[in-house]
Amino acid sequence: MAYILSVFAVRNLLVLSLALNVSLILRVLLLHDSQDGSFNGFFFAEQKEEALATKITRLSSSVAPSSSLTMAQGDEDRVINLDHGDPTMYESYWQKKGDETTVVIPGWQFMSYFSDATRLCWFLEPEFAKQIVRLHNVVGNAVTENRHIVVGTGSTQLFQAALYALSPCAEAEPISVVSAAPYYSSYPLITDCLKSRLYKWAGDARSFSKNGPYIELVTSPNNPDGFARRSVVNGSEGILIHDLAYYWPQYTPISSPANYDLMLFTVSKSTGHAGMRIGWALVKDEDVARKMTKYIEINTIGVSKDSQVRAAKVLKVISDNSEGPNEGDSFFEFSYRVMAKRWKQLREAVQQSGLFSVSDFPPQLCMFLNRVFEPQPAFAWIKCEGDIEDCESFLRGKKILTRGGKHFGVSPKYVRISMLDRDKNYETFVRRLSTIRS
Amino acid sequence: MAYILSVFAVRNLLVLSLALNVSLILRVLLLHDSQDGSFNGFFFAEQKEEALATKITRLSSSVAPSSSLTMAQGDEDRVINLDHGDPTMYESYWQKKGDETTVVIPGWQFMSYFSDATRLCWFLEPEFAKQIVRLHNVVGNAVTENRHIVVGTGSTQLFQAALYALSPCAEAEPISVVSAAPYYSSYPLITDCLKSRLYKWAGDARSFSKNGPYIELVTSPNNPDGFARRSVVNGSEGILIHDLAYYWPQYTPISSPANYDLMLFTVSKSTGHAGMRIGWALVKDEDVARKMTKYIEINTIGVSKDSQVRAAKVLKVISDNSEGPNEGDSFFEFSYRVMAKRWKQLREAVQQSGLFSVSDFPPQLCMFLNRVFEPQPAFAWIKCEGDIEDCESFLRGKKILTRGGKHFGVSPKYVRISMLDRDKNYETFVRRLSTIRS
Repeated sequence: MAYILSVFAVRNLLVLSLALNVSLILRVLLLHDSQDGSFNGFFFAEQKEEALATKITRLSSSVAPSSSLTMAQGDEDRVINLDHGDPTMYESYWQKKGDETTVVIPGWQFMSYFSDATRLCWFLEPEFAKQIVRLHNVVGNAVTENRHIVVGTGSTQLFQAALYALSPCAEAEPISVVSAAPYYSSYPLITDCLKSRLYKWAGDARSFSKNGPYIELVTSPNNPDGFARRSVVNGSEGILIHDLAYYWPQYTPISSPANYDLMLFTVSKSTGHAGMRIGWALVKDEDVARKMTKYIEINTIGVSKDSQVRAAKVLKVISDNSEGPNEGDSFFEFSYRVMAKRWKQLREAVQQSGLFSVSDFPPQLCMFLNRVFEPQPAFAWIKCEGDIEDCESFLRGKKILTRGGKHFGVSPKYVRISMLDRDKNYETFVRRLSTIRS
Repeated sequence: MAYILSVFAVRNLLVLSLALNVSLILRVLLLHDSQDGSFNGFFFAEQKEEALATKITRLSSSVAPSSSLTMAQGDEDRVINLDHGDPTMYESYWQKKGDETTVVIPGWQFMSYFSDATRLCWFLEPEFAKQIVRLHNVVGNAVTENRHIVVGTGSTQLFQAALYALSPCAEAEPISVVSAAPYYSSYPLITDCLKSRLYKWAGDARSFSKNGPYIELVTSPNNPDGFARRSVVNGSEGILIHDLAYYWPQYTPISSPANYDLMLFTVSKSTGHAGMRIGWALVKDEDVARKMTKYIEINTIGVSKDSQVRAAKVLKVISDNSEGPNEGDSFFEFSYRVMAKRWKQLREAVQQSGLFSVSDFPPQLCMFLNRVFEPQPAFAWIKCEGDIEDCESFLRGKKILTRGGKHFGVSPKYVRISMLDRDKNYETFVRRLSTIRS
């Protein structure tokens, strides 16, 4: 603040006055919002705060007459939303790549429901299927031999397709769906959304002891805490779904190709293209792949061809660059470096503040990058130390929006923080975090 | 056959011999198929026949040495699949339009989950929303004032979003979902897919007499029979969903803007872009629109941005051309003419055969085309007259794949036939239909 005040001039007082007006306008807007109960954002966004964040951005950009001061002032004041894992960090890389990943789609192409009627997954674009196999072979993170590929509208839809496919039809009772806490906060919501008689959420896998069949979700590296995982339930009738959204070399060393019966991946977290809504499943059992395809057929009659075509192009460029002479400029080199830098900054900020803690991860050799490093997850799983019982509320008071531990089945002393936001937001976040004192 | 035989030459005998080989190969393939139980296609496709159709197409194109004869011969033999409403008829129009509807998407665009965080439907692309409103205003087929727009992965996903939004949460029993038979064959499948405790399929609306709340689906013009519809249940606690997928001027006269609480539309049947998987809902009640958005958030975390951008472009070109000087070449003029021609051909074929019947529709003034015409639905709803009890099986014997009445809740004497296939398939179909005798 001292720095900011030192550069104040008469002209800048006008800015301050305008900012005060903005603040008053916002109070009116917020009051209105809490009356009409409106919200935006997804899953656990603190919608009031997010609306506030958006309105601040919009208002400040429309009233701000001066640049540098406003920027500095905005950075002090503005709400940083790290609740969702929106992977906008990757935009700068793809922007730098220019036309390499541009797609051109004429109006008369991809009009049919069908991509290839002879395939088990008849709405899967053949070129996308080819590039999926190629990328897994290049990176070495999953076995694709003797697997069926099912494409989904994000891996979220594929998770539901898997539940549908794996639930026993004839059972009187819904099959239990479990995952070890802390588990991905959306799993319970998705599982119980329609109150299905086929399956139901049964909570933390570690405390699950019911006899009979069950479905265990194994997310590895785990969302939210970043640790590598294996199944934990010791039952004989368990069916496993492996969510490998984060098993890519920018987040964790690739030690060997994953080789499970049902593996889920998504472009959102691998290439950063969340807006495409494209995921894929590698499925060993033909009958399961067929039933998953059936679910997607009933749910959305297939998956956007346009996004599949675009995803195929992006995957192709990643494979080409990983194998070619410009390897140093490859997507995974870039994103590995950004994640490494961000985790270093985070650990420094945590240390400076003294109020928080974050896990250490054992270093491992990455067969793809040919380098030993510690996992650098897409989310930071931070614990508020000392007396702070509700870390999410505490940070919200500092205008940092996060997702609290209770959504992941654990203590509210924990929060999950997205590490994938744009540079500007991330920089502001670590700066602010480092200055937080009790 | 006489015509074909008359042009036979020694060279052509070779073709015949090859065709016999194809036939033998196919028998082997079919036998294999029935053993492994594989299938392709969606909803009610007779999968064996469809696999057969694909294989015939592939084989004949690879072995066919001569053009015209092979074409004629292929047309005699090949399976015509009119089971799905795949709108490939529209490809030729968009091809003719060339670059007008081409989209170019750079790799770094539309990466975020969010389209506009300040909107109720935060994953709706603003430009698409704008073009939806504009097109409805140009065509005059729906009121958009005071409506919320919710985008979906096709109207199929929006139908489920509506069920989720309209089901009372607190009820012990699932709410009944009904529609007057013949109803769209997918409604029961979609409704009961996950055995939800929120809602359940309760069949034909005409025989529904249960007290209390219910959801009635009103498809107008109706799929499969093409008639304009109103709700039929006489209950006080009914909630209506209007599926207006076919309320466009190529299918039916636009008499006035539809003005219902919850209306569903889709590009698949309006512009022919089924592969985009894009639909939209116009929703009067804010809370319902919010809950629908929530469902799509949980189900697929939004809708492909790429397809929304492409759909926006297509809608824009349609509106531009409908209003501009090239009105005669506009999309709806083109598609109106094709449908008019096809319905004329169909009625002639039905008359020539003498085995089938098809409904007449009362002519009406279309306010958009400024012309009086009879509805010319996207599906023909044909009845086998006389002794034929199972019209679907009967036509399958003639290598015409259709969807039988039982899937729509009525007699198997009826079949639904897509009128939206490519010219070549449609021509072959009407020619074959006209020659069918008992």
